[in-house]
Amino acid sequence: MDHDVSTEQVAREQALVETVVASFDGAPDPRLRELLQALTRHLHSFVREVRLSEDEWNEAIRFLTAVGKITDDRRQEFILLSDVLGLSMQVIGVNNEAYGDATEATVFGPFFVEDAPEIPLGGDMAFGAAGEPCWVVGTVRDTDGKPVVGARIEVWEADEDGLYDVQYSDDRRAARAHLFTDGAGEYRFWGLTPTPYPIPHDGPVGRMLAATNRSPMRASHLHFMVTAPNKRRLVTHIFVRGDRIGWKDTVFGVKESLIKDFHRHAPGYPTPDGRIIDGAWSDVRFDIVLAPSDH
Amino acid sequence: MDHDVSTEQVAREQALVETVVASFDGAPDPRLRELLQALTRHLHSFVREVRLSEDEWNEAIRFLTAVGKITDDRRQEFILLSDVLGLSMQVIGVNNEAYGDATEATVFGPFFVEDAPEIPLGGDMAFGAAGEPCWVVGTVRDTDGKPVVGARIEVWEADEDGLYDVQYSDDRRAARAHLFTDGAGEYRFWGLTPTPYPIPHDGPVGRMLAATNRSPMRASHLHFMVTAPNKRRLVTHIFVRGDRIGWKDTVFGVKESLIKDFHRHAPGYPTPDGRIIDGAWSDVRFDIVLAPSDH
Repeated sequence: MDHDVSTEQVAREQALVETVVASFDGAPDPRLRELLQALTRHLHSFVREVRLSEDEWNEAIRFLTAVGKITDDRRQEFILLSDVLGLSMQVIGVNNEAYGDATEATVFGPFFVEDAPEIPLGGDMAFGAAGEPCWVVGTVRDTDGKPVVGARIEVWEADEDGLYDVQYSDDRRAARAHLFTDGAGEYRFWGLTPTPYPIPHDGPVGRMLAATNRSPMRASHLHFMVTAPNKRRLVTHIFVRGDRIGWKDTVFGVKESLIKDFHRHAPGYPTPDGRIIDGAWSDVRFDIVLAPSDH
Repeated sequence: MDHDVSTEQVAREQALVETVVASFDGAPDPRLRELLQALTRHLHSFVREVRLSEDEWNEAIRFLTAVGKITDDRRQEFILLSDVLGLSMQVIGVNNEAYGDATEATVFGPFFVEDAPEIPLGGDMAFGAAGEPCWVVGTVRDTDGKPVVGARIEVWEADEDGLYDVQYSDDRRAARAHLFTDGAGEYRFWGLTPTPYPIPHDGPVGRMLAATNRSPMRASHLHFMVTAPNKRRLVTHIFVRGDRIGWKDTVFGVKESLIKDFHRHAPGYPTPDGRIIDGAWSDVRFDIVLAPSDH
């Protein structure tokens, strides 16, 4: 701001904040009241601190309108916005506080869908999506080290062109599936070796990144969501050690504990399930530890 | 939150904030950098303070998506949202700090349109909109008391059914116009006696108000926007003394200095411009003082 704000002006601004906060006093749901009153305080603090101009407010309205306009059943620009501001990651962190050796969580992203097909253990979740095959194995355990039998594992990822199935205009379902751990808490499946890709950046969020010289690229990753009775739901990714995007991930999702060694194998090298694949392939191990549901 | 947050957790959360803030360091426009870095800090503070749950985050995404979906050329739900959170009023306050006896500003609202017709002094801005006629007069002066000649005055208001022209599905233009002050800085026109009305409350913002036991009603008002060379643009309303909504205005727009005495006259009482109107009418005086454009 280009001048000091007078005591009278400060008092007026503070009085408005208190009036708005008080307008929510009658909300029957105490949590909704708490959320809206806190949101009011923080947003007003922002406006007052930066002395937001009317033109800037108009631009914010236009930006949010454009975010709303491009959002539909296949494109979720509000989630992208939350992601690139690190808010999604902060929410994940707040709800997945460190507990024992529980696997760390990371962003959910906008590309999960509910109706992914089930595959058997050792099955292929690619369903024809283009990319280098990747054999993924691991165990699911609890924080006492006990195997979690029948844990549901949802996996989804982009193809080698950097696109999820829902980003194509046809109705394909590919590179996503769910499976269950066996009696020893183990799982295994064929997926694709993850490759870096940009978040959708032809919309307002992409323009914001461009205007601030930020890259739209995500570090290479494979999504997991793991659920089991009495366990905290785990939403996470595994990342590829040595990936060229690495820590510059545009949604701030990378954590050291989630970077895994993907071993690459030459064409013809026998696979763990006794197949010969026409081309190179990789394998990776991801052992998962679930926190109890009350932590 | 239901437990203390560990020192390690606090450090992790703070580190994420700083990483996101640093991601904007390369923004070429220093003001854009300042805005996004401050927005990041305040939004993360909100999430951390309330320990926003993942379900609540999902609900926020759904809410914003719904706000986006209902917004079009005629309906601006993002502005309504800003209005009912008092943010529009805070922005107005920040940009219209008290200066001399300059007239106070209030919210712009979502119903201004650019192409309102010009009317002559003494003309009728109702253009057939239903409502009780109201004769509005006043002067426009600067903070030195000098008349402002040729000031452009935009006026717009709801009809007696509480609807602006743009809220009808036809393409009517009514109850909005612009005019210019004469050589003495004076203006006069026929409008409508303002009546209370709800903001559009059939959308997500209306549902939020209902969920928090807040009324969607706006205090009765008539919108003004006044511009003149080298003067600060004034966006304001006049309110009706004795109005049944009064200070409970859902967008926090009411200020004591903007509450005016509307005098009502019986049918047949001669008007200031020598007409006999078929029904009751009112009159009101609103003298306007414009601050210099650099304040």
